[in-house]
Amino acid sequence: MRLIECVPNISEGRDQMVIRPIVMAVAATADVNLLDWSADPDHNRLVLTYVGEPEAVMTATQKLCREAFARIDMQKHKGAHPRLGAVDVIPFVPLRGVSNEEAVALARQLGEWIGEQGVPVYYYEDAATRPERRLLPDVRRGEYEALAARMETPAGAPDAGPAVFNARSGASIIGVRFPLIAFNVNLATSDLAIAKRIAEGIRNSGGGYRNVRAMGVDLKDKGQVQVSIDITQYEKTPIHRVFETVKAEAARYGVEVAGSELVGLAPMAAFEETIRYYLRLHDFSANQIIENRLL
Amino acid sequence: MRLIECVPNISEGRDQMVIRPIVMAVAATADVNLLDWSADPDHNRLVLTYVGEPEAVMTATQKLCREAFARIDMQKHKGAHPRLGAVDVIPFVPLRGVSNEEAVALARQLGEWIGEQGVPVYYYEDAATRPERRLLPDVRRGEYEALAARMETPAGAPDAGPAVFNARSGASIIGVRFPLIAFNVNLATSDLAIAKRIAEGIRNSGGGYRNVRAMGVDLKDKGQVQVSIDITQYEKTPIHRVFETVKAEAARYGVEVAGSELVGLAPMAAFEETIRYYLRLHDFSANQIIENRLL
Repeated sequence: MRLIECVPNISEGRDQMVIRPIVMAVAATADVNLLDWSADPDHNRLVLTYVGEPEAVMTATQKLCREAFARIDMQKHKGAHPRLGAVDVIPFVPLRGVSNEEAVALARQLGEWIGEQGVPVYYYEDAATRPERRLLPDVRRGEYEALAARMETPAGAPDAGPAVFNARSGASIIGVRFPLIAFNVNLATSDLAIAKRIAEGIRNSGGGYRNVRAMGVDLKDKGQVQVSIDITQYEKTPIHRVFETVKAEAARYGVEVAGSELVGLAPMAAFEETIRYYLRLHDFSANQIIENRLL
Repeated sequence: MRLIECVPNISEGRDQMVIRPIVMAVAATADVNLLDWSADPDHNRLVLTYVGEPEAVMTATQKLCREAFARIDMQKHKGAHPRLGAVDVIPFVPLRGVSNEEAVALARQLGEWIGEQGVPVYYYEDAATRPERRLLPDVRRGEYEALAARMETPAGAPDAGPAVFNARSGASIIGVRFPLIAFNVNLATSDLAIAKRIAEGIRNSGGGYRNVRAMGVDLKDKGQVQVSIDITQYEKTPIHRVFETVKAEAARYGVEVAGSELVGLAPMAAFEETIRYYLRLHDFSANQIIENRLL
């Protein structure tokens, strides 16, 4: 079974008469698993997480968009979270058997469809058409309130859909990103400087691994410090390699790893290389896991 | 999703008019996944492997039994493989969310039902009612040909069903066993004595781990030797512990582990402890793997 995840952010976190039909549109789509949804009144924002085969996820997302465009008027929207439109951001995350290229094609297909609904579309991250649109904050700069003026400049031309401002729905930002692994390593010391030095050493910005962001955190309750790690491309920078580097760097201060934490969810594929590396199972295939035969 | 595996062995490996309806009975059962089936003409025996929730697996197994009892006459059966009846052996293997006790209850429920069809039933391994019936070869001793006489002795009294010989269907042997992990470790030496000594040290019969069978094997083509390992209860004797012991024992001869192999399939749960141990992910839960949310 091929699996893609979709995590749309919708600009309504208060009105149940708007939230419910949007959530139901996804929940009622055949072959789509709604893993989570949460509405935040302060942010005035709804975030859904669902997975399924690409076709089913596309169907669910179109249904969600129809509900959101019909029920949300951006001219009345206020909230603490930056946003550009009613269906603000739609990130696709390829989980299993879906290449990045296929996910980008899916994002573009959805973009064309949203464009046909009269809503301008920008692509970001792996779906971006220009380097300056890779980062979401850059695409969203100035927010909905500045969108009309921005669309009149060449820098504000949408990637799909009408090149004119849609006052009711704003614009939608569609992208593809790899699943993020949030993995923390706790050290048996209370010396925060050690965690910070290790974080600096393993993260991309400090000269470390390309797909790693990291910082040192004080866990006062535990009397420990933590190297808090995001791995943005586990296929290229696998979990075990980052972990072993943290362990080796800690050892030079005579500090032991007390334990690790996986925050949230991860796809099975993120741990395949862990199993291969430590057990030296060079030819191990995910297909040898019985559960994978059932998906 | 709860998952149990069933691997029935049926006494017909030649006649497609018998094999097909039996395989189809399982394949056509809703919510059951037929992972594999193979018919061996020399053994004159059919082996199916399917998984699903306990209720669905029970339904499939009853349908399979009906077909087999209707179409197989043991009075005409010849084959190289030992057997006691038309539906010779039915092992249940709890894979996920099913305790051994629940699997035994399922085995006994099926036994009562097969008894009601007029076929005597013996329970073996974890479903056994007597210590001398734990091992399958003991239960099957003398085979179908000796069954009539054996049933007239107290040692031959069935655990369920009629206490009289059924000439057409023989008897059925139903049991519960843990999923077997077949895991081989290849050593970077051609000295078979080293593999044999390590195998002796890790296996139960040699004073090693309780749930381990192992032997040394010569891999002449590779110029390596192998410690070939069966782990019969990975929950109690986890893969990583056996692997690390092999690695440490090899090191005393200055021998490195060249690589490992997983033979066949394993449930995801067999590797959870591997991930926890090596990454020190003490609180890692299988529920954090996205795919597990979809089952």
